[in-house]
Amino acid sequence: MLARHLADGGATDTGRRPEPVIVEEPLEIRLDGHLVTTTMRTPGDDFELAVGFCHSDGLLAGAAVETCRYCGTGSAVETEFNVVSVDTGGRAPEPRARLTTTSSSCGVCGTEQIDALTARLAPVAAHEPWPMDVVLGVVGSVRDAQRLFDTTGGVHAAAAFDRSGEVSIVREDIGRHNAVDKVVGRLLLDGRLPAVGLGLFVSGRASFEIVQKAWSAGFEVVVAVSAPSALAVETAERAGLTLVGFVRGDEANVYADPEGV
Amino acid sequence: MLARHLADGGATDTGRRPEPVIVEEPLEIRLDGHLVTTTMRTPGDDFELAVGFCHSDGLLAGAAVETCRYCGTGSAVETEFNVVSVDTGGRAPEPRARLTTTSSSCGVCGTEQIDALTARLAPVAAHEPWPMDVVLGVVGSVRDAQRLFDTTGGVHAAAAFDRSGEVSIVREDIGRHNAVDKVVGRLLLDGRLPAVGLGLFVSGRASFEIVQKAWSAGFEVVVAVSAPSALAVETAERAGLTLVGFVRGDEANVYADPEGV
Repeated sequence: MLARHLADGGATDTGRRPEPVIVEEPLEIRLDGHLVTTTMRTPGDDFELAVGFCHSDGLLAGAAVETCRYCGTGSAVETEFNVVSVDTGGRAPEPRARLTTTSSSCGVCGTEQIDALTARLAPVAAHEPWPMDVVLGVVGSVRDAQRLFDTTGGVHAAAAFDRSGEVSIVREDIGRHNAVDKVVGRLLLDGRLPAVGLGLFVSGRASFEIVQKAWSAGFEVVVAVSAPSALAVETAERAGLTLVGFVRGDEANVYADPEGV
Repeated sequence: MLARHLADGGATDTGRRPEPVIVEEPLEIRLDGHLVTTTMRTPGDDFELAVGFCHSDGLLAGAAVETCRYCGTGSAVETEFNVVSVDTGGRAPEPRARLTTTSSSCGVCGTEQIDALTARLAPVAAHEPWPMDVVLGVVGSVRDAQRLFDTTGGVHAAAAFDRSGEVSIVREDIGRHNAVDKVVGRLLLDGRLPAVGLGLFVSGRASFEIVQKAWSAGFEVVVAVSAPSALAVETAERAGLTLVGFVRGDEANVYADPEGV
């Protein structure tokens, strides 16, 4: 897109010039024909995003994904690529409208949300401590693969990596959560879940939702470039997940499972 | 919380020490008794957040807010502060479940979302160009007021500022959208909407949702430290909003309304 670039506090005006900006479009995700959510995302890897979202949210409940396709009943061509249908042949339970779900109790607090996850998910499998050099090195490895970030500066990245430091999947999106769902969706479609022996990297902060997604996928460690939230730390502790934050240069903080690195 | 700090690539282990982490808790927002949403937020300024969210989402439809209160029917004390009821005496239309709303059309694309906003919102009032030094200076002014960021490094900030460069409201939250809603809610509760003569600052990127909220509130300019999305630029153009991104040092890019700075 064209943008007017101003420098020297406005003294230099280079006029309008092309500036790459990140694309953001809504994606409607359906599961066996039922609308699940509409998320603003960067187009690309849409099937992975849809499948990963359904898995992370516990909507598949163990059902295998049979097909994944764009649903095009709209009249405009572009809308066909903004609706993805995940199909399990009806084996996944019918998704409940989220409003109904959340209104079922008046009180809501972080502890209850962790309790709900604990009821649904087993703790992450016990694992050997992760090598510190791998945890520190993943930042640079993923950075080298952030193609959209290089161009636009406006996207988050998530990645899966193993104990040898090899980064097998990198996904970028304007939404951090979407980037994680795309990684999880890729692993699911490749039959690699639960993610035993794998770590999840996120380019920003580690919120509750990121740790929830990591736990659902069975990652052993979450490595975040920036800060975790208190609820994220509590959730990781309950999950048996190693949570590392503020990974910068040769320093890092280990918040949950302190012996896990 | 306690964290184990590792430096020198793990060679130095300072052991477990207290590390401040940002608090993240769910907030359930109700409008005239109807559940509207549950958002993960940093506690504080909850009434502003609830009111701002309702306004930004167009749920008030012009109805005045009569009261705002914590709703405590849960048994645990902490849950009482995680549910906020906004009351308009029933003058706001009954909020529709979001799933119903988004499933009403199969196709969905960014253009339709902008069209929906255009149908609901008038363009931002015509305004004089904003002084470049004010646009550049707001980054530093807000940074000085980011108390939570100083402590935890894990929060976003949003702020309202005027043409003289005075920053009147700064709000921080783990969610960028929440920080904006808190600013909007404060302005609404103070009877200062539409935000004529005011600019909105955001510490991160400018996504569609941020520009949507700014348009709903009637800000004249949005200043983002980082990148905008393509849909955000298109939305700002339609709104008549000036959108400035990558504001760093004495440089900036003006994406929408290029003569607006």
